[in-house]
Amino acid sequence: MTQPSRLAIVPFVSVDRMMKLVLAIGVERFLTELAAYIEEDFRRWELFDKTPRIASHSHDGVIELMPTSDGRLYGFKYVNGHPKNMREGRQTVTAFGVLADVGSGYPMLLTEMTILTALRTAATSAVAAKYLAPKGARAMAIIGNGAQSEFQAVAFKALLGIDRLRLYDIDRSASEKCARNLAAKGFDITICSTGQDAVEGVDIITTVTADKQYATILTDNMVGSGVHINAVGGDCPGKTELHRDILLRSDIFVEFPPQTRIEGEIQQLDADHPVTELWQVMTGQAEGRKAPEQITLFDSVGFATEDFSALRYVRDQLQATGLYEELDLLADPDEPRDLFGMLLRAAMQPAA
Amino acid sequence: MTQPSRLAIVPFVSVDRMMKLVLAIGVERFLTELAAYIEEDFRRWELFDKTPRIASHSHDGVIELMPTSDGRLYGFKYVNGHPKNMREGRQTVTAFGVLADVGSGYPMLLTEMTILTALRTAATSAVAAKYLAPKGARAMAIIGNGAQSEFQAVAFKALLGIDRLRLYDIDRSASEKCARNLAAKGFDITICSTGQDAVEGVDIITTVTADKQYATILTDNMVGSGVHINAVGGDCPGKTELHRDILLRSDIFVEFPPQTRIEGEIQQLDADHPVTELWQVMTGQAEGRKAPEQITLFDSVGFATEDFSALRYVRDQLQATGLYEELDLLADPDEPRDLFGMLLRAAMQPAA
Repeated sequence: MTQPSRLAIVPFVSVDRMMKLVLAIGVERFLTELAAYIEEDFRRWELFDKTPRIASHSHDGVIELMPTSDGRLYGFKYVNGHPKNMREGRQTVTAFGVLADVGSGYPMLLTEMTILTALRTAATSAVAAKYLAPKGARAMAIIGNGAQSEFQAVAFKALLGIDRLRLYDIDRSASEKCARNLAAKGFDITICSTGQDAVEGVDIITTVTADKQYATILTDNMVGSGVHINAVGGDCPGKTELHRDILLRSDIFVEFPPQTRIEGEIQQLDADHPVTELWQVMTGQAEGRKAPEQITLFDSVGFATEDFSALRYVRDQLQATGLYEELDLLADPDEPRDLFGMLLRAAMQPAA
Repeated sequence: MTQPSRLAIVPFVSVDRMMKLVLAIGVERFLTELAAYIEEDFRRWELFDKTPRIASHSHDGVIELMPTSDGRLYGFKYVNGHPKNMREGRQTVTAFGVLADVGSGYPMLLTEMTILTALRTAATSAVAAKYLAPKGARAMAIIGNGAQSEFQAVAFKALLGIDRLRLYDIDRSASEKCARNLAAKGFDITICSTGQDAVEGVDIITTVTADKQYATILTDNMVGSGVHINAVGGDCPGKTELHRDILLRSDIFVEFPPQTRIEGEIQQLDADHPVTELWQVMTGQAEGRKAPEQITLFDSVGFATEDFSALRYVRDQLQATGLYEELDLLADPDEPRDLFGMLLRAAMQPAA
């Protein structure tokens, strides 16, 4: 087979290459640089084509497509959410994504996004907390110590200087796994036996549990004044983590209201309950934290622009690192109108 | 690097592999078998999750995602349409697609779909014509002799026995290319110098031009009674091929009305102009061709179920042919909750 031309080739970052990329850059620096891309895109929020994700729900979970574009680049992510997968040795969430050139419609990057989504979710939480967490925050509770927990911890250390962690999970071995993975990362870590214990004296509460149901990970009495809540786990219809009363005491910050009202903690509230859009805080059009006693809540569900930022960031690392493969994804006949002829000529090539 | 586990691997059909697959099966047999998958899925139409494609329009073209699911499998296609690409040596339309398992959300196939879309579009046209073309049809005009034209010809020969072609394109070299590519396929081919000449005495008129504009490839006087029109080229807002008067004289058959009213020839008509859904003809709930003098029109825009059928078909050929690669697309830690640990352990592996 003749080699496909350069136009037909799409750079591909496999899981293996993504791990090498993160390790080559360093996970802290990766999160910090990625956070800057995410913040940059939030600041030019109004430029983006925004649409709630396109979800295909089934009994066991959901498959979603999350497209967006800034008019120059187009990105989308494929992501599933299947809580039962864990029991079968599979990931609850797996993802991959594509960045494309709006001018030609040609894909420029195909990449795994299971690891990348974990990174961008944590980076987004940390960016939000920069604007919302109490000044000088050092201690964070992480409730739910699954696949996302370490990424949250490292992002909050890299961006905010959080260095004291209080871990809680209904499965203590998950907390132990989290503590073990973070052992060399410079944290003071306490494993707690209740959620109540975990939130004791912290500045930030991160909830990142995985069950697809209405749960009450935090009850109202657990949340003291001045705390920032980073609610990451409640991210689809029927899946919430916080008691409704907490929401009523908090100032709530969201990514994209039409999506968050369906998927976030605020699905528990009236459709017109006031929320503040994160991008407006970043651009100075709205206030973030106003007072030390205020309870701030980032009702994170994950939005397409964050994946777009992550795709942009990965794309920008390829040339320097060479950590990609070349995928023969696009048909590229010598003569664009001659797709059939390309097929006929392939029959005359010697076998590869 | 340790090998990723089987769960992490997604079969990938590159352009090269797709060409080998089509050639190994034979293009006529491929089209015939694919047509059977398409018809099978049209017959169980009501089972599918249907949504108009999600389009991102820009000055130069459009990028679309076309998802659908039958509750057991989920498929989507990424496809662009950029008419200006041809002038830059690129394809107007390129595509790739994914088939996934609804139960786990895990992708089961990633494949090029530029070639596959050309095949499924032609197979769908031929399936529709089985129900709509006049009995005993032998002669077809093809107006627009670009990348799709040969696929249409071969599909109509394989499924309907069409063996006389009258070709017309504003660029005569396109017709010559089409005739050359079809030389060994058993057609009696005439290259015509006008559209009027091309439609002379034919049973079927296939229009498959590519310009993104309102065009009038067929005027009313060119269409005699009893003809079946297979209108393939008009497939996005602002792009039509037929004079409105032809539509008013025809019985119009469509794939999915909410999409066709936006993208098809019938965007020229009132939103309540009667149309018949193709699946209802196939299931016997509606009539196809009723009389020899009737003008039937298949207003083809391409629908997600057809891509779904094509993905299913390709997936079913993989094991017997081995014509795929293995893509390390999904992160698969030994312990699903330990994504971060997988990253840490990758640092301890020797370099690949």
